Amino acid sequence: MVKILLSGCCGRMGKVISECISNFPNLTITAGIDKYVDSSLEYPVFKNIEECTLDIDVILDFSNPATLNSLTKYAKIKNTPLVLCTTGYSEQQLEDIKNASNEIPMFRSANMSIGINVINNILKKVSAMLYDNYDIELVEKHHNQKLDSPSGTALLLANTIKESIPHETVFNKGRDGIGKRPHNEIGIHAIRGGSIVGEHEVIFAGQSEIIELKHTALSREVFAVGALKACEFMYGKTEGMYSMDNVIND
Amino acid sequence: MVKILLSGCCGRMGKVISECISNFPNLTITAGIDKYVDSSLEYPVFKNIEECTLDIDVILDFSNPATLNSLTKYAKIKNTPLVLCTTGYSEQQLEDIKNASNEIPMFRSANMSIGINVINNILKKVSAMLYDNYDIELVEKHHNQKLDSPSGTALLLANTIKESIPHETVFNKGRDGIGKRPHNEIGIHAIRGGSIVGEHEVIFAGQSEIIELKHTALSREVFAVGALKACEFMYGKTEGMYSMDNVIND
Amino acid sequence: MVKILLSGCCGRMGKVISECISNFPNLTITAGIDKYVDSSLEYPVFKNIEECTLDIDVILDFSNPATLNSLTKYAKIKNTPLVLCTTGYSEQQLEDIKNASNEIPMFRSANMSIGINVINNILKKVSAMLYDNYDIELVEKHHNQKLDSPSGTALLLANTIKESIPHETVFNKGRDGIGKRPHNEIGIHAIRGGSIVGEHEVIFAGQSEIIELKHTALSREVFAVGALKACEFMYGKTEGMYSMDNVIND
Amino acid sequence: MVKILLSGCCGRMGKVISECISNFPNLTITAGIDKYVDSSLEYPVFKNIEECTLDIDVILDFSNPATLNSLTKYAKIKNTPLVLCTTGYSEQQLEDIKNASNEIPMFRSANMSIGINVINNILKKVSAMLYDNYDIELVEKHHNQKLDSPSGTALLLANTIKESIPHETVFNKGRDGIGKRPHNEIGIHAIRGGSIVGEHEVIFAGQSEIIELKHTALSREVFAVGALKACEFMYGKTEGMYSMDNVIND
Repeated sequence: MVKILLSGCCGRMGKVISECISNFPNLTITAGIDKYVDSSLEYPVFKNIEECTLDIDVILDFSNPATLNSLTKYAKIKNTPLVLCTTGYSEQQLEDIKNASNEIPMFRSANMSIGINVINNILKKVSAMLYDNYDIELVEKHHNQKLDSPSGTALLLANTIKESIPHETVFNKGRDGIGKRPHNEIGIHAIRGGSIVGEHEVIFAGQSEIIELKHTALSREVFAVGALKACEFMYGKTEGMYSMDNVIND
Repeated sequence: MVKILLSGCCGRMGKVISECISNFPNLTITAGIDKYVDSSLEYPVFKNIEECTLDIDVILDFSNPATLNSLTKYAKIKNTPLVLCTTGYSEQQLEDIKNASNEIPMFRSANMSIGINVINNILKKVSAMLYDNYDIELVEKHHNQKLDSPSGTALLLANTIKESIPHETVFNKGRDGIGKRPHNEIGIHAIRGGSIVGEHEVIFAGQSEIIELKHTALSREVFAVGALKACEFMYGKTEGMYSMDNVIND
Repeated sequence: MVKILLSGCCGRMGKVISECISNFPNLTITAGIDKYVDSSLEYPVFKNIEECTLDIDVILDFSNPATLNSLTKYAKIKNTPLVLCTTGYSEQQLEDIKNASNEIPMFRSANMSIGINVINNILKKVSAMLYDNYDIELVEKHHNQKLDSPSGTALLLANTIKESIPHETVFNKGRDGIGKRPHNEIGIHAIRGGSIVGEHEVIFAGQSEIIELKHTALSREVFAVGALKACEFMYGKTEGMYSMDNVIND
Repeated sequence: MVKILLSGCCGRMGKVISECISNFPNLTITAGIDKYVDSSLEYPVFKNIEECTLDIDVILDFSNPATLNSLTKYAKIKNTPLVLCTTGYSEQQLEDIKNASNEIPMFRSANMSIGINVINNILKKVSAMLYDNYDIELVEKHHNQKLDSPSGTALLLANTIKESIPHETVFNKGRDGIGKRPHNEIGIHAIRGGSIVGEHEVIFAGQSEIIELKHTALSREVFAVGALKACEFMYGKTEGMYSMDNVIND
């Protein structure tokens, strides 16, 4: 049984983790860390990580960038893997994470969904091969409250394609007017509407055939599942920098 | 057996009509009109419509706007329905078509595909009802040689939606940057790639559900099928202006 | 402000209703009825409907068939519309519901989703028109815990199509072997996997074109939204039998 | 310039090859072989391959299994690669093809589409990794004249998945009735309608996410494009057995 210390346990994703863990019979939440204590949880919650003296195997973080320092310090003392699912770190913090990985096992990924990482991996392998004979377009769909267009995940996938192709390509985020599509364009289209959780589709359109790779997130749980898979994977690992790529290629 | 006089019989669509007519046992091509005579055709071809003295029931035109005058004149003399599938008429010519419909049965449609007209019809009925609770987006896909974006058919559908809704709506042809989607936007996204014949999808995305209406053209034949359906429909009609809407609501 | 009495308020759908109502500024839950009292709710909960003496406008039921009698009795006394979202009524109960509608406004629908009802309505209008020239297939997708295949909603849509067409049609629930598709088949395909909430797609495949009507449920909330729309609609109605068809054609 | 000898040049696929080759500036058809001579072709056509004394680089075959012997004999004499796109070989003939590959470069593939082979390749890599956490389903769509269900290509993909997974899996070709989906099922669903050219979709449905890989053939040309790619690839190769896998991993 892998014992998890859940940082940010009372936040939105913390709650999803608490619900989702029942699908992972080999994982358990031993304790939580949060500023606000929610007594309805089934495990003890500490306001400061230093207060937790329980035996733990992995630290899972869904809090905010400000906790990085205390989490890393604690992970080093306990010699425990640290799985970071928080976003918005500064350049300096990303550097700190990398440095910490010289001493302890550190995990961080641009996207926590298993499926997006599988597709990203496939794109690394097929984009260069297909580029000469196929036009590449991305379509992403999200709810109407999303602020950024295109989505960070769409840009992640588009950049993977761009970096795989040994030619200069450009992104086109919407066509309006007269003119044929230049082959070196990668179209990125942001559909917004209703409560769509998240869809990403990569289209390779060639002479008389189309290949499509599509990912659909059905709920926010997708990130919880990925995070718990990462905890399973990180259990017992030695120092080093790990990401979802390691999990799916395991 | 409905006897068709096919104007533009040696052009690209004329040939598709000649191949496609075998699926319509009650239709036959009695003669063709074209500048270039193709001896491989199974029916006589005349360079000028006046030369045709054969008995005909419907005139089907897939030539070019310049033939309108001679076609209308001939149709009036023979008192025959005229099915116009040519695009690019001037304002004056559209007026002439309307005037001719006072004397003879005239047919013209913005889009000759049955399926697009069915979807356009549905949009007339549901757009206003759904607008308050659903965000509306259109996605269209075409081959990489297409010059205009969005496609004329996408604009046809978008305008049908716009005209059905009793609020001011605006078209957004590509999102890039920060900011929530305003509800009165109708997104129109033009995907271009390979040899895609033509896809049009209307998305109504609401709170916890999505309704999609999609049309896929599998080949240029789709316009031939629509044109031949129009010939069947126009056979025996009296004077007046007709369109695909009349065919599908028959 | 329409005041709702929510029967079954502590069940799974009752909770979704309580969360979802904030999107309906003109609706409020005045009280709930349930066997188990959940003190975390913001409104009073009664074990028996007779105990509720508060002023209410509509009764919304998400409990179980056993409550029908007491709900109807109470609705008659208060002269209040009764919106029934419970499934599994016996033939006798369906008869009782119909009889009650002679005295009070009664609402019941085979499916509470607005979108499914919109598509069902479209099918009533286009199926007969398209049948001669298009082959009709249904594809539905649900999670891997679903017991019945095809889904009740797929059968609802398939029966709407069947009843609209003036020819004998048959359902084919899976092809395996040699033989061309007979035109009068309606294919129904049940995909099962993961946690898919619910997708229903009707395909009209013709000569060189395809028309598709698709509904995607993003969460269980879709039924709550439909139920609350029904409450808005039923407010102030006179006696009679109502369904989602009335709501969407309002 | 790679000089191709096209066997079966007057057949349906032979004609598609003749049209399609203009997209391959480095390929040319030097001569054709067929029983029936079509004088409209731009290259000489021989009734027997032995009559062709022109200089050729690759033999491309779209005729029928009966020609195998004469093609192989000629290819050995000329020491030329032989690209076989004919289907329906007997077990003995498949053995003969393998034996011939000890002397000359031989090419044969279960499916000539580049895209299907790309997807088949991806399936080899991801199926085992995803199996534990995702349910796998295949949906294929073809025109209403197709005799076999499921399609040979669907079975090719399904068998690739089956062979990649280190557990016993079974195919389910249509659900009807009561009962949860067993995890070790691979659903295969054959949609038939209109003139659909060919679609194959593999669905990995997991907890809160779906990954889909889809291939759409837009026309019969897809096989011509694959065959001509194979000719490019086989030019100058030494003896051995080659398939589309070698082409796409080149």
